[in-house]
Formats: sequence, structure tokens, C-alpha cells
Amino acid sequence: MTSIGFIGLGTMGLPMALNLCKAGYTLTVFARDFARAEPLIRAGAHAAMSPGGVAEVADIIFINVSDDAALEAVLFGSGGAAEGLGQDAIVVDMGTTSPATTRDYSVRLARQGAVLVDAPVSGGEAGAKAGTLSIMAGGPEPAFRRVLPLFQCMGQNIVHVGETGAGQVAKACNQIAVSATLLGVAEALDFAARQGVDAGKVRQALLGGSAYSRILEFHGQRMLDRNFVPGFKARLHQKDLGIVLGEAYRLGIALPGAALAAQLMNALVGIGDGDKDSSALIEVLERFNGMDQ
Amino acid sequence: MTSIGFIGLGTMGLPMALNLCKAGYTLTVFARDFARAEPLIRAGAHAAMSPGGVAEVADIIFINVSDDAALEAVLFGSGGAAEGLGQDAIVVDMGTTSPATTRDYSVRLARQGAVLVDAPVSGGEAGAKAGTLSIMAGGPEPAFRRVLPLFQCMGQNIVHVGETGAGQVAKACNQIAVSATLLGVAEALDFAARQGVDAGKVRQALLGGSAYSRILEFHGQRMLDRNFVPGFKARLHQKDLGIVLGEAYRLGIALPGAALAAQLMNALVGIGDGDKDSSALIEVLERFNGMDQ
Repeated sequence: MTSIGFIGLGTMGLPMALNLCKAGYTLTVFARDFARAEPLIRAGAHAAMSPGGVAEVADIIFINVSDDAALEAVLFGSGGAAEGLGQDAIVVDMGTTSPATTRDYSVRLARQGAVLVDAPVSGGEAGAKAGTLSIMAGGPEPAFRRVLPLFQCMGQNIVHVGETGAGQVAKACNQIAVSATLLGVAEALDFAARQGVDAGKVRQALLGGSAYSRILEFHGQRMLDRNFVPGFKARLHQKDLGIVLGEAYRLGIALPGAALAAQLMNALVGIGDGDKDSSALIEVLERFNGMDQ
Repeated sequence: MTSIGFIGLGTMGLPMALNLCKAGYTLTVFARDFARAEPLIRAGAHAAMSPGGVAEVADIIFINVSDDAALEAVLFGSGGAAEGLGQDAIVVDMGTTSPATTRDYSVRLARQGAVLVDAPVSGGEAGAKAGTLSIMAGGPEPAFRRVLPLFQCMGQNIVHVGETGAGQVAKACNQIAVSATLLGVAEALDFAARQGVDAGKVRQALLGGSAYSRILEFHGQRMLDRNFVPGFKARLHQKDLGIVLGEAYRLGIALPGAALAAQLMNALVGIGDGDKDSSALIEVLERFNGMDQ
């Protein structure tokens, strides 16, 4: 049976790894904070002392760490996964990483005979726990096919978007669309309030027509309720938009909507709200429109 | 039985009036272009020679004209509806009008004992024909109750948002949310194409997650298919965003996302595409990102 590794047991990684355990797979896991592995060990997983220790015993190694720097460290740092990778191993990066970095790491891993599959997700902590994540995958078809049954333990809407990096491109597209929609919903609800109109009724009216979005339904309600418990933290949204704008710079293209959303997300983190849900973006609008006073 | 008038038989007004006829109501109608009334007359409607002629015989007068200037002319111009309005008449403006103009006209009509209900719609020509429009209504509760059975012949999601003007505020909010979402979807699909990734697969991956919107589903597909047959014309979207930004100016608030979308919509109309569906906004992005060459 395929031996599975899992590196990075944060808000997303831990419930995703638990869903693999529940499906009957035996995992070898690593987390910087060893205590994070405890629920998995109770569920039958083994612990390794380093990412390299995971790679030595696993054919398929999932990685779910917070940013490009952390990914580089667990892959290519001292004791990193690259030190232990076997021939034909598949490394699956489920975090949000830049497409350029993904393609670079893919080339470096290929020199060792290993394949990198990029498979970032959408759906947040709730989706990770429920096993209902959207998974956007990039990589060679045979590797995708080998990992698919494992993806199916963690997610529901699983799309093989294209070659290596295509999953991260799709995730960047997701964040472009989500951030613009979030801004539009925040402006609409702020505008309604400034007109003295019940923003809750406006949301209700808009849900039935062409303005319908999941963001309007769920994040619009959060804005009305002032419920900014994450969800998806503003500082992670800011980080993802940093990736988007880095790629726009590299490609020489303009993404004015994403750039505007990124500026406002910077301001949201700047006022100390980086750990709130990113729907708190409406607070930035309210600040410069004078509604916070 | 309540006598019903209908003024303005354009792309939206004609099918909406026909749905009232089909429900068994006898209408008195007026259109600048008399020939537009022909299908209604065949369905049993009477024609009047002026908006004032409609108002003389109708208790409830629907108006569906293209902008504030046309609304002022049919209401207060020579031969306008205001000349013929009876006591307790209800004027229902189903076009998209600025909230400030709506409140002004409401006061002017009240001097004659008439009530203005603002009831702009979302759903486009397809929704008007199918009787599935979203209707966002503002006005006093008793007037709304009197008009509701007629709204139910034209639409499905009917929300009484608040007092006079609140329907137009909701419509403005709708256009704020829709235009930002449209920009986000256009940027996402353009970004995917510039990365060499299949934009159709990206759309598919995004539909299953938090980026889902009706705009992504329907307008995203239009963008992929280069199908810009309206739908909702860019020049009307531009006009509606003009109302939004006029209100933002009047209120002294900043709507940076709506302002950006409005600028790009200006450019879309400027390149001669005002009669295309507003999802053609992606063409503006492609122009400055060099994909049109």
C-alpha cells in the first residue's frame, strides 16, 4: 500500500491529515510544533523527526505550510524532504505558493526523480474539517491520477487544471475573483448604510439576482453581523494577493482590481486586524467613509 | 378592478407589460414609438396618446424608461403623466433612477396626492420575458401592498427594501457588487490566459468554491465564448455606475471599486463596444495587457 507523509499540521493541514487517517491510510507526519501531531498519533499515525524523515518512508508527501519561505525550508533546508525523497516520490504542495516558485521547485525535484503536484485549496477551515475543500491541481496526469483517491478524502470539487503550476494559477485566480467580489459586497453594504437603508434587506434583495455570490451570502452576512472570527485571515488574504501582484509584475500585466483590493487589505492588516476574517475589509471602507466614529 | 397604465415599452418594458396582459389585466399603454404597443394592443391593451392620457385612466402607472431625463419628461413634461394623475394614484418607476431624483419626484407627486414607488429590477431581458425578475421596491407599505400582485406577474424575488428611494439604493448596490465581481472574473480569466493555463478549467475549479458567483457562472462563460450579445449593454452599465458615483459624490463617500469599474466601463464604451454585453469588460483588460494583438 502507498505510504503517505504529511508535513505541516496547522489550521488546514491537521484536519486534512485527519481525514486521510479516517479513510484508513497510515500517515507519517511532521510538524514544527510536535504537539500538533498528537491527535494524528492517537489515530494511528507515525511521527518523524524531520521533513526528510517523512520523505524517507513515504511515496506521496503532502505539504501544507504557510508561505514560500516555509515551503523552501521543509523541502530544501537542512533535514528537508529533498534529502530523503525516493525515486518516483510525489510531493504534493497543498499550500498557496507562487506559480513561479512552484515551477522552479518542480525542476529541482525532477533532478531527484520526484514529481511535484501543486494542489492549493479553497474552502477554509470548515471545508478542511468537513472534507469538502475545492482542490485545484497542477501536474502530470499520471501523478494526478495516483493522488486523486487521497484528494477525494479531503475535498469534493477536484479539478486537474493543467501542468505543474496550473493549480497555483487557479488559486491566484480564485483570490483575484474573491477579493474583488469582497470589495464589491463591502462597498454595496456600506453604501446602503450611508443612504440610511437597511443593508440586510439590500443583501436579501441582491441574493435573488445577478449579484448573487457565495461572498455576498456568507461574507455579506458576516459584515452585517460584525462577525470577523476567521474563516480566512486577512493576513493570509494579503499574502495571497502579494503572490498575485508579484506574478502580474513578472508577466508585465495590469490587474487593477486585484491591486486595489490588495491595498485595502494592506490597510486592514495595518490597523491591526490581520487576524480577523478578511471580510473585515468593510471596516477599512467605513474608516475612510467616517462610519467608525 | 384596478386600472393599470404602462409607459415605456423598450427591451424591458414590453415583455413586462405583456406579462401583466397575460395575467388578465387590461392595460392602457404609451410609447414614443407607437409601433412598440402593437403586440400589447393585440393582447387587449388600449393605447393612449400621451403619458398624461395614461394617467387619466389608470390608478397604477408603471414607467420603464431609460434614464432620469426620460423619466422627467414622461412625468413632468408637456402631456406628462403628472397632468392626468388622479388622487391616490400610484406611480411605479421600474427603471434605474438615482435615489436623489427619486426622492425629489416623490415629493413633487405627493403634492398632487399621488405616491411614487421605486421598483428597479435585475435579471435583464431574459428575466423580463420569463417573469423572473428580481424587484427591489421602495415606498410606503400600503402602496407596496397594492402593487405587489402586479409585481408578482413580472418577477419572482420581490423585496420591499424600505421607504421611497430604497429600491433605487438597492439597485445601486446591485450594480456596485455586480461591476466589482465582473472585474474580478475578467481579471482572473485574463490572468489564467496570460499564464498559459486553460481559463475554462480555471472557471470550472472556481465554481465549486468561495469564488462562486452568478457572474462567474454566466458572464465568465460569455467571456470564454466571446459571446457579448446583450444581455445587459455596457452603456447601460456605464449609466448605472454614473448614478452610483453621483450618489457617492453627493454623500461624500469613497467607493474605490465602483469607481475603478466605472473607469473601465467608460473605456469599453469608448472603444465602440457600448452595445455589447457588459461582460465585454474583459476586452479592455486584454487591450492594456496586450492580448488583443
